[in-house]
Amino acid sequence: MTRTVRIALIGLGHVGRAFLELMTVKRRVLRRRYGLELVLVGVADSTGVAFGDGRIDHANVLRRKRRGLGAGEYPRLGHRGVPAVEMVRQVNADVVLDASPVDLRTGQPGLDCDRAALESGIPVVLANKAPVVLAYRELMDLAQAHQTALRFSATVCGALPVVNMGQRDWTACEIQRVEGVLNSTTNYILSAMEQGRSFPKALAEAQSEGVAEADPSLDIKGWDTASKLVIIANAVLGIPATLEDVDVLGIQHITPDDLAAARARGQTIKLVAVAHRADDEYRLSVHPAALPLDHPLASVMGWEMGIVWHTDIMGVQFAKVDERGPMPTAAAMLRDVVSLYEGVA
Amino acid sequence: MTRTVRIALIGLGHVGRAFLELMTVKRRVLRRRYGLELVLVGVADSTGVAFGDGRIDHANVLRRKRRGLGAGEYPRLGHRGVPAVEMVRQVNADVVLDASPVDLRTGQPGLDCDRAALESGIPVVLANKAPVVLAYRELMDLAQAHQTALRFSATVCGALPVVNMGQRDWTACEIQRVEGVLNSTTNYILSAMEQGRSFPKALAEAQSEGVAEADPSLDIKGWDTASKLVIIANAVLGIPATLEDVDVLGIQHITPDDLAAARARGQTIKLVAVAHRADDEYRLSVHPAALPLDHPLASVMGWEMGIVWHTDIMGVQFAKVDERGPMPTAAAMLRDVVSLYEGVA
Repeated sequence: MTRTVRIALIGLGHVGRAFLELMTVKRRVLRRRYGLELVLVGVADSTGVAFGDGRIDHANVLRRKRRGLGAGEYPRLGHRGVPAVEMVRQVNADVVLDASPVDLRTGQPGLDCDRAALESGIPVVLANKAPVVLAYRELMDLAQAHQTALRFSATVCGALPVVNMGQRDWTACEIQRVEGVLNSTTNYILSAMEQGRSFPKALAEAQSEGVAEADPSLDIKGWDTASKLVIIANAVLGIPATLEDVDVLGIQHITPDDLAAARARGQTIKLVAVAHRADDEYRLSVHPAALPLDHPLASVMGWEMGIVWHTDIMGVQFAKVDERGPMPTAAAMLRDVVSLYEGVA
Repeated sequence: MTRTVRIALIGLGHVGRAFLELMTVKRRVLRRRYGLELVLVGVADSTGVAFGDGRIDHANVLRRKRRGLGAGEYPRLGHRGVPAVEMVRQVNADVVLDASPVDLRTGQPGLDCDRAALESGIPVVLANKAPVVLAYRELMDLAQAHQTALRFSATVCGALPVVNMGQRDWTACEIQRVEGVLNSTTNYILSAMEQGRSFPKALAEAQSEGVAEADPSLDIKGWDTASKLVIIANAVLGIPATLEDVDVLGIQHITPDDLAAARARGQTIKLVAVAHRADDEYRLSVHPAALPLDHPLASVMGWEMGIVWHTDIMGVQFAKVDERGPMPTAAAMLRDVVSLYEGVA
């Protein structure tokens, strides 16, 4: 028995397009292992939306996008200039995927789409971290009130299962400390500077690999890392933290000389997110830290990201991932979609 | 609303006793976070069994055991010399925990207990790896036939969520290669030899820390590592492997000189379990391997254990744990118990 899952996708950037690729590449595996067939029924990008009766050929959306043609321009089903939230309100979907651009001030346009979906009882899977950073409690409450689900394992380090480990594996643990290298662009820049490149050259390299944004200030100033820490705080540590609760210092003032001096002391500098528990409260910070070379996070090199969990009854747990490009993040969205149907006949 | 979970525990060795400790230490957390109250209703060890109408004071079982008094000698409810499987057949339990001794030839006494529980529709949580190594398919089929569950996240590296990551996080992935340092005793011995100790001295240290068995040959000859690889093969890779399918070479012939020579070449020697996919089949092996120092497993030191997953769409994932003693394994059993009630009102 194959169950059809109707997908509405918001955002046709790197991650959204990678998800459409996965729908083709993983079609047989999804059917065979999980009994699921994903079909695209709605799609939105900056040009508008496309939806209508029945399915949209996701491979065609992808081909057209590569030629510069957006959702609003899709034959017959496209509606130019119509906002994504309209598509979400009208489309007949089983899951809404939010891979829209990150706006840490407003959360839009994703946030309103996510609200609309949950209010209609439609589960939401996010790669866009802004809505969970800004409105975690509201969205979780909405999901519960409408007996549906919000999944966001893709928002923290892509395919590295940070949220899943935190929510499912450290059962009954007290987590005394979390330390993470959660942003690969800054980590790449620090690794490149450690090898002697200047900051501008290291940054240019990161940008040419296409992972850093054209405006990389969110990465470099530490706000992307802080966002992930806020999600961990809310979703794993159970505290209603916001970005304002995080002491944030980025890597903008770190020089190759700092890294060389640290190395001479047997240390390496990483941009580290920390949640540290003291007096029954967690203190949250993001800052460049000189780590001894045998610290687990010192082994997180270049494009890698990693996290250390200090627990009371499950020891010290460390996980890292070497992942490039948007595919692992899209794969994490796929993981969340499949998880919605676990144990469902 | 608190739900009472009646626990029958087989085995009062290190892990079983640590579980009883957790029942006390984590009582409030279990109630507050998960709405569960664990009560002991049956217990078995080499002296016999104890069960009857209602609960058994788990703290008293623990106190008595420390004084050398076993389950069979428990006041009023104890039955000397009665085998564990009789307790499993008669006790009124919600979950059976198998923390009985590992016998990789017969799987007994755990295997018959696990069968009896599943046949009665009672879920089983294992720390004892032998039953899953020897009878994975049979036990899973039994669980399915009787609409119950078998959980065994504690059988592979204690609290390190190897099975959980493999089964839940690498959704739709092709796993091209798994490499693991899965046995901490051998890893401790290799680390100690690398620091110049002889094999016998390193082994004696491992034994004095109480982690190596009095007869450590299962560890040293690689069979404990191979057992964990067989569980990964069955439960994650989906292949019906047995111990006979694994090429096994232990560390019994490794000398401090070998380690020094490797170090001089920029390598370190680890006992590595490998599942490697080629031509649509996995080749399974356990052998001492010289790894470059920047290999993730080279950072798995002393009492640590670790695993690397090479996936197609989720990058290369690495996880390791620094855990000592039996508590993390007991905590993993607790994780599995709680998971049985997830999403259950």
